[in-house]
Amino acid sequence: MNHKVIRYILGCVLKIEAVFILVPCIVALAYRETEGLAYLATSGLCLAAGFLIGGKKPEKFVFYLREGCISTSLSWIFMSIFGCLPFIFTGEIPSFTDALFETVSGFTTTGASILSEVESLSMASNMWRSFSHWLGGMGVLVFLLAVVPLGGGSRINLMKAESPGPSVGKLVPRVAYTARILYVIYLGITVLEMIFLLIGGMSLYEAVATSFATAGTGGFGIKNDSIGGYSAYIQWVTTVFMILFGVNFNAYYYIIFKNIKKAFKMEEVRYYFLIIFIAIGIIACSIFKTTSGIEEALRQASFQVASIITTTGFSTVDFEAWSGTCKTVLVILMFVGACAGSTGGGIKVSRFIILIKTMIKELNSYIHPKSIKKIKIEGKPIDHEVVRSVNVYIITFVLIFVLSIFAISFNGYDLITNFTAVTATINNIGPGLELVGPSQNFGHFSVFSKYVLIFDMLAGRLELFPLLLLFHPSIWKGTISKKK
Amino acid sequence: MNHKVIRYILGCVLKIEAVFILVPCIVALAYRETEGLAYLATSGLCLAAGFLIGGKKPEKFVFYLREGCISTSLSWIFMSIFGCLPFIFTGEIPSFTDALFETVSGFTTTGASILSEVESLSMASNMWRSFSHWLGGMGVLVFLLAVVPLGGGSRINLMKAESPGPSVGKLVPRVAYTARILYVIYLGITVLEMIFLLIGGMSLYEAVATSFATAGTGGFGIKNDSIGGYSAYIQWVTTVFMILFGVNFNAYYYIIFKNIKKAFKMEEVRYYFLIIFIAIGIIACSIFKTTSGIEEALRQASFQVASIITTTGFSTVDFEAWSGTCKTVLVILMFVGACAGSTGGGIKVSRFIILIKTMIKELNSYIHPKSIKKIKIEGKPIDHEVVRSVNVYIITFVLIFVLSIFAISFNGYDLITNFTAVTATINNIGPGLELVGPSQNFGHFSVFSKYVLIFDMLAGRLELFPLLLLFHPSIWKGTISKKK
Repeated sequence: MNHKVIRYILGCVLKIEAVFILVPCIVALAYRETEGLAYLATSGLCLAAGFLIGGKKPEKFVFYLREGCISTSLSWIFMSIFGCLPFIFTGEIPSFTDALFETVSGFTTTGASILSEVESLSMASNMWRSFSHWLGGMGVLVFLLAVVPLGGGSRINLMKAESPGPSVGKLVPRVAYTARILYVIYLGITVLEMIFLLIGGMSLYEAVATSFATAGTGGFGIKNDSIGGYSAYIQWVTTVFMILFGVNFNAYYYIIFKNIKKAFKMEEVRYYFLIIFIAIGIIACSIFKTTSGIEEALRQASFQVASIITTTGFSTVDFEAWSGTCKTVLVILMFVGACAGSTGGGIKVSRFIILIKTMIKELNSYIHPKSIKKIKIEGKPIDHEVVRSVNVYIITFVLIFVLSIFAISFNGYDLITNFTAVTATINNIGPGLELVGPSQNFGHFSVFSKYVLIFDMLAGRLELFPLLLLFHPSIWKGTISKKK
Repeated sequence: MNHKVIRYILGCVLKIEAVFILVPCIVALAYRETEGLAYLATSGLCLAAGFLIGGKKPEKFVFYLREGCISTSLSWIFMSIFGCLPFIFTGEIPSFTDALFETVSGFTTTGASILSEVESLSMASNMWRSFSHWLGGMGVLVFLLAVVPLGGGSRINLMKAESPGPSVGKLVPRVAYTARILYVIYLGITVLEMIFLLIGGMSLYEAVATSFATAGTGGFGIKNDSIGGYSAYIQWVTTVFMILFGVNFNAYYYIIFKNIKKAFKMEEVRYYFLIIFIAIGIIACSIFKTTSGIEEALRQASFQVASIITTTGFSTVDFEAWSGTCKTVLVILMFVGACAGSTGGGIKVSRFIILIKTMIKELNSYIHPKSIKKIKIEGKPIDHEVVRSVNVYIITFVLIFVLSIFAISFNGYDLITNFTAVTATINNIGPGLELVGPSQNFGHFSVFSKYVLIFDMLAGRLELFPLLLLFHPSIWKGTISKKK
């Protein structure tokens, strides 16, 4: 294991965080808030830790998948630990566990909060919460790849460990360019949303914070009723942009740089929209009677469907009061998740496509036992290795899922709360049902349960294996024997 | 597709059913019940249908996996349709859907009932319900293999389609002998249980009916409070035999015919007992305060754990009132299920062993990407094909599971009811939680939901693919074009 390179990357990430944490500082300055000092102090700490841990740039930059995974998961853990300090310093979230939960929820774009209300927070802290979504959405390591020239080695392993989805496609041969293109598209759509929200009458602060939280498919609101208090126009704009951020970013790349046709032929994106339309249809029909008319039914259905399938977690109504069918549809969407290569979480539409095709292939093998047809997506056969990794992913997902529910069941809550708390965190959504429903929060869980859910949020965002690898004995064996 | 052979097997199965349905006839005779006539009439109908459908023994007995699957799933459907007729003829369950639900629940050893109380049923009908568990437990086709000499062809395909678990091991080279050995062991342990129950003071009728339902890991009781009203001794006896029937029958074969050591070395059986002990420990600690002492806590915990993990579904207490942790443990056990090669349902312990080993192997591949170690069970490497089929099984299970919950959600019930109703049927358990809890029944579901759950029970018992195959277009294409 190349420890030097892991430390170097960790150092870089902390230095980047030191710079980004100045954003809430500037907000505090603009609104004359003393909380800004907490963010300034944290920035200093990040910088110092960054230099201390990072050391000099290593000469040997050999970099395998395990190094990619370990540096990614350690980066996310360190980022979260440092990122939660301002909440403690300002006294807004005095408990370390709660502050860490809130920050992990921010970076992993979950949006599950331990706060019962957010409007009393400082402007700086609310901006930091929203901004952490934006950073976590595309990923800090992808940002690092875009700006820091890492010499040699296969940097694709760093990107593989952080990017969501069963397979990472480089848009262009060079990883650094791919990372830059992704960030430019990401920033572009975020700014576009800001403009639309400003037109709708939001203040600049609100527009920026809401766009950050939408872009990362995060879900932290700056109002206690999330987006419920805003105008129908704002709700529609948020709906559309949530859906857009759940699309595989390759589609935007095709639209901008190549031919639009290719974007519309993407099988995953087509199924993604199909699922959205069906879900909106079912829910709109079901809630129609309780709303004032077709527009409201469609708006509420679309907003909640978009919010859940993209794993954003905003809400405009308390869907806890909806019918069992609606809730079932929403719970299913929680698992489906957005497209691979988007900022959304969940299991991902592409994995489900592969799973369903695997099942059909198995059925066919009963009829024609000697057939050796490969599974195809967009007409191209998929590598056996991808199918296998999707299978293993699902199995691991189920195992972590069950163990987590078991672990938090000691809290003594009902099964729906336990089930949807784990669902909402491992899929990076935010709200669940019952005690963790849209009008509730996660503050009432025990400290142990909160750490279980923190683990689930990180595991969900990093697609399980990079985080699990930290528990592999051989990783630490090497470290300890080296220290000896 | 060899249609003649499928029809021949179907005919045989119906003829066997005609004989077996005389058992409740004899009970009716003994108790002077007129309901016996309904069973006699059904026996006649089965015989007539058996000769009509079966035709002469085909000369060409070529038999592939697809023929095995199709004849198995069709046999089970036909058996259930004919088996439900007595309930309709006697007027005890007038609705065809309800009668079919009850019969499928019997044959698939689920034990989910649409009846709110069972003590008013005739002795004949209660015996038929319990006896259907016994028939379905080991499988009617395995019985057929044991008694009907099918010439040539690879009959293992018939056994593969009906026997539970990821791989079918022939105990002895000849399929017919294997089937006979299995039935002898099955009958032996059933009789042993009867003797123990008779010693405990049960009447012959009660002892026979309870043993049938335990042996098939079914769960239909003949009392409204299931086993709750019987003595502690009877409850302990039932607990022990439920656990015994959940053990891989190969273990008994080893104990009887070969060396005992080999039986104790079976990895699946060891994990099965380990899981049972841990679950009993957790639940006994949790319910200790509400019981009269250690014995009662242990007895109630053991009974419910044994009943759920073996997917029997008897109950001595309403575990609906237990803590969230207990209910979570029970729900997890519902999915784990018993050993492969037992009469129990669920996903099976051996599949979970393979899944967890697959996950560990994947983690190792991150550390040593070039390692090509195979997964081992009992020190022997498992065939890649078995691992793949386990993966595909889990995926298909999850997909059917989700679709079923969605389908029954239109009933308007709460999520826990929907979730556990599907869990309890697809895993062939019986009771779930909330509206389908141990003191409730399935009668209140809509007709559509009942057919969904009937499908789930059959899919669970036949391990998904044989039943799904019936929906494959090519199966019917051949039939139709042949008829033309």
